[in-house]
Amino acid sequence: MLTEPHYAAAGRRPRLALLLGDPNGIGPEIAVKLLARDDTLARADVVVYTDPSMLAAGERIAGKRVEMFRSAPGSLETRLGQPTLAALDLINATAITPGQATLAGGRAALIALEAATEAARRGDVDGIVFAPLNKHAMRLAGLAHEDELRYLQQMFGVTDFVSEFNVTGSLWTSRVTSHIPLRDVADAITREGVIAAVRIAVRYLKAAGIAVPRIAVAGLNPHAGDGGSIGREEIDVIAPAIERMRSDGIDARGPLSPDTVFLAARRGEYDAVVSMYHDQGQIAMKLMGFDNGVTLHGGLPVPVTTCASGTAFDIVGRNVANGEGLAQAFGLAARIAAREAPGR
Amino acid sequence: MLTEPHYAAAGRRPRLALLLGDPNGIGPEIAVKLLARDDTLARADVVVYTDPSMLAAGERIAGKRVEMFRSAPGSLETRLGQPTLAALDLINATAITPGQATLAGGRAALIALEAATEAARRGDVDGIVFAPLNKHAMRLAGLAHEDELRYLQQMFGVTDFVSEFNVTGSLWTSRVTSHIPLRDVADAITREGVIAAVRIAVRYLKAAGIAVPRIAVAGLNPHAGDGGSIGREEIDVIAPAIERMRSDGIDARGPLSPDTVFLAARRGEYDAVVSMYHDQGQIAMKLMGFDNGVTLHGGLPVPVTTCASGTAFDIVGRNVANGEGLAQAFGLAARIAAREAPGR
Repeated sequence: MLTEPHYAAAGRRPRLALLLGDPNGIGPEIAVKLLARDDTLARADVVVYTDPSMLAAGERIAGKRVEMFRSAPGSLETRLGQPTLAALDLINATAITPGQATLAGGRAALIALEAATEAARRGDVDGIVFAPLNKHAMRLAGLAHEDELRYLQQMFGVTDFVSEFNVTGSLWTSRVTSHIPLRDVADAITREGVIAAVRIAVRYLKAAGIAVPRIAVAGLNPHAGDGGSIGREEIDVIAPAIERMRSDGIDARGPLSPDTVFLAARRGEYDAVVSMYHDQGQIAMKLMGFDNGVTLHGGLPVPVTTCASGTAFDIVGRNVANGEGLAQAFGLAARIAAREAPGR
Repeated sequence: MLTEPHYAAAGRRPRLALLLGDPNGIGPEIAVKLLARDDTLARADVVVYTDPSMLAAGERIAGKRVEMFRSAPGSLETRLGQPTLAALDLINATAITPGQATLAGGRAALIALEAATEAARRGDVDGIVFAPLNKHAMRLAGLAHEDELRYLQQMFGVTDFVSEFNVTGSLWTSRVTSHIPLRDVADAITREGVIAAVRIAVRYLKAAGIAVPRIAVAGLNPHAGDGGSIGREEIDVIAPAIERMRSDGIDARGPLSPDTVFLAARRGEYDAVVSMYHDQGQIAMKLMGFDNGVTLHGGLPVPVTTCASGTAFDIVGRNVANGEGLAQAFGLAARIAAREAPGR
């Protein structure tokens, strides 16, 4: 049960779950740095779902102590101006092996994710922010899904279209297809898929505060098919989907040449680029500095965000990890949760 | 017949054909600027295959006069310290319509290309540098080929693997497949194709002066297939091709994740990236400033280069076009021709 005297008073103030990610990566360190920032609690209430052993490790590396309110087991009280610790039994201090992908580390990360998802389903939190996970460690611990997004999708029981967004600076990208072989991409591009991807982009951009999002839709083929001479998907599939969106009042444009659409987006001509496949978007985003950016898992009941950078095993423990991406992930989840949280 | 008193004396000094490209684009202007630079004739002898009307137009826009040696019709004399004009009848001054794609413009560009190709076949020149062409204009004039490279390939009667290289700064890229639908890419990636692409990259990088080129080979699928879980082309096709190259003493590495290989290349870890399809390379190169770069048409009997930027119809006639790309194209052709020209 939530006891929230300050919460109602603060109106649209959201409450976010914060997870420390893989215990052997930079997650605990940058999460502690985030909690120690003055502006963090100004944006949202924070409930930290973690093991005290992981928190202590992060504090030791970051050289900072975080005063936390420890809610009683089974309840979830919060206190104004302090993060709340929802203590979980995830991993023993002695099992933390910085810089290594281990089953114990992957398991700790997955259990915390499960706890936060449960909390969101109960309505205890309005969004989830997690520090870097390690795919290899999670696989060791039994993760069988294509990626975290599919895992979260199943945990939330979502059957609708879900979409990973990558946000760097003010530019968003998403994609119609994701971790599938390039061989299968063309057949997986459907009118419905393009429409769903554009719609979900519009929804989240609006939630993030952009009233009339300008959406660039990339083509599939070189030069966007060059009038049909290098492939017909632009003519047969993508253009009709864009027409449909435009007739619904959505500012979607394209299909645009894949090798120049990101130049235009970088100049500020679009708020988002909807790409057709993984590397079409990822090659561009990584070159544009996305490693300091944010990943948003869209289509779930609450916003779920993380930083684009990974566990950075090579620099764990040296207090040199850059936490700016996680801070931005936190800010984005707070903005969206403040607008989208049910009943507000 | 060549009369070349200075030529033999200069040893490895190459002779390059320079073409002004589409008469309605920025080509004539930037070609005149190139000819007016002090260092141009220091690098190579230059024979300009063009119509005097186009040269005059370029001189008027650039505000520069170029003193040219006019060789007698049918012969090709050169004179030390002066570019040679090989005058062609391409277009009337009155038919030049700046900023427009026309049949007359496309025809002028194609005839000049043909003349230079003939000259190279005769051994009159050791390389060709051309200012921007306009694809639409060339199509109006009857060009039926996939691109200029296929046109040049046919004109030179080449049946071996040809390859377009894009060069920006010190980074080269080429690709195994080019202007084909994305749907057809996976099947077009063969072991032989990857090997041919790596081999030709090594050949040109060596000709450009890099003794032991470091070649990054991109994967085809997201995360380079992630151990076979997102496609098997890396395992079945690309890795065996790389193994083969390495056993021949070539420093080829990969298959590397398509969305991070260009970050490593930008950091200077590779001299070239061999990509698998058009947009994999082009998205990256354009974001890395390739519009100021150089395109090399590789696999032809002589080096053929051009600047990456196009006819820029919107700025024709204003003397604001940046000719740096064409100057770099000239320098690259000169370097390669000096090493590769037969009999030297």
